Amino acid sequence: MDANALHKLSYGMYVVASGGPGDCNAQIANTVFQITSAPPALGLSINKLNYTHEFLEKSGVFSISVLSEEADMRFIGRFGFRCGRDFPKMEGVQFRTGVTGAPIITEKTCAFLEGKVTGSLDCGTHTLFLGEVLEAGILNEQPPMTYAHYHQVKNGKSPGTAPTYIG
Amino acid sequence: MDANALHKLSYGMYVVASGGPGDCNAQIANTVFQITSAPPALGLSINKLNYTHEFLEKSGVFSISVLSEEADMRFIGRFGFRCGRDFPKMEGVQFRTGVTGAPIITEKTCAFLEGKVTGSLDCGTHTLFLGEVLEAGILNEQPPMTYAHYHQVKNGKSPGTAPTYIG
Repeated sequence: MDANALHKLSYGMYVVASGGPGDCNAQIANTVFQITSAPPALGLSINKLNYTHEFLEKSGVFSISVLSEEADMRFIGRFGFRCGRDFPKMEGVQFRTGVTGAPIITEKTCAFLEGKVTGSLDCGTHTLFLGEVLEAGILNEQPPMTYAHYHQVKNGKSPGTAPTYIG
Repeated sequence: MDANALHKLSYGMYVVASGGPGDCNAQIANTVFQITSAPPALGLSINKLNYTHEFLEKSGVFSISVLSEEADMRFIGRFGFRCGRDFPKMEGVQFRTGVTGAPIITEKTCAFLEGKVTGSLDCGTHTLFLGEVLEAGILNEQPPMTYAHYHQVKNGKSPGTAPTYIG
């Protein structure tokens, strides 16, 4: 099997947050995708070891902030390569509280979606969360960052906990 | 809710096939994504009305052929806007039979993945199939087609059965 074929799949880059004001976490994810259109529902693949996984299970709400190409590696790194258990990820970051209570990141992003968890599928190392979209909006007309842009232009890496990690 | 925010999510473009030699179907899908890396596993969101859905349920195997940018609207249309119940989609198309028995499209594609269905989640109008990757390969170095390219460059549309359809 040539695992490089997995790199030919295309994704975006997102900050997935879960929880409420003062008690939440946020992480980078690339595996966010629409599952149904009526009602609009999303799928998210989240590693069971990630702190955000705990919040998804206990709060049952989430926000997706769509990163724009202007997001730099320092910004991505604070959400993607630090753990919210021992680092205050939201400190100094521009955000507002969404209708679900989850934070919506309003800098270096171009759109957001918010929802509630309506189902899940145990996928071994990861849980696939299914969520109905409750609110959504466009923040600006900056182009959304793709996973290809993150790798090829920003020279970004994937942590070992990513669904798309290849060791 | 501004449903246009859903258009800020990024995807690729794929031919998803299921079934064996002489008894299979294939369709276009954009919601194909890696769910775990150990073992490598994929998620696919397929409309319950689609003919390919029947094959996924009864054969339990699938192939993903990654469309390259060179795929034209006529080629995409035969898989995406025709139904395999009354149109022989594979006739005249270049393919080979994969290790799972499912056809791998070898024209206008740049990579493939094959696997077996290991789980599923009922998502209303769609089923989210979870599948372990059994074989994968790169076919050539053509750039994979993104969903943004399909819409913005090819001026493509989404059928009503697509997960990402907005009426």
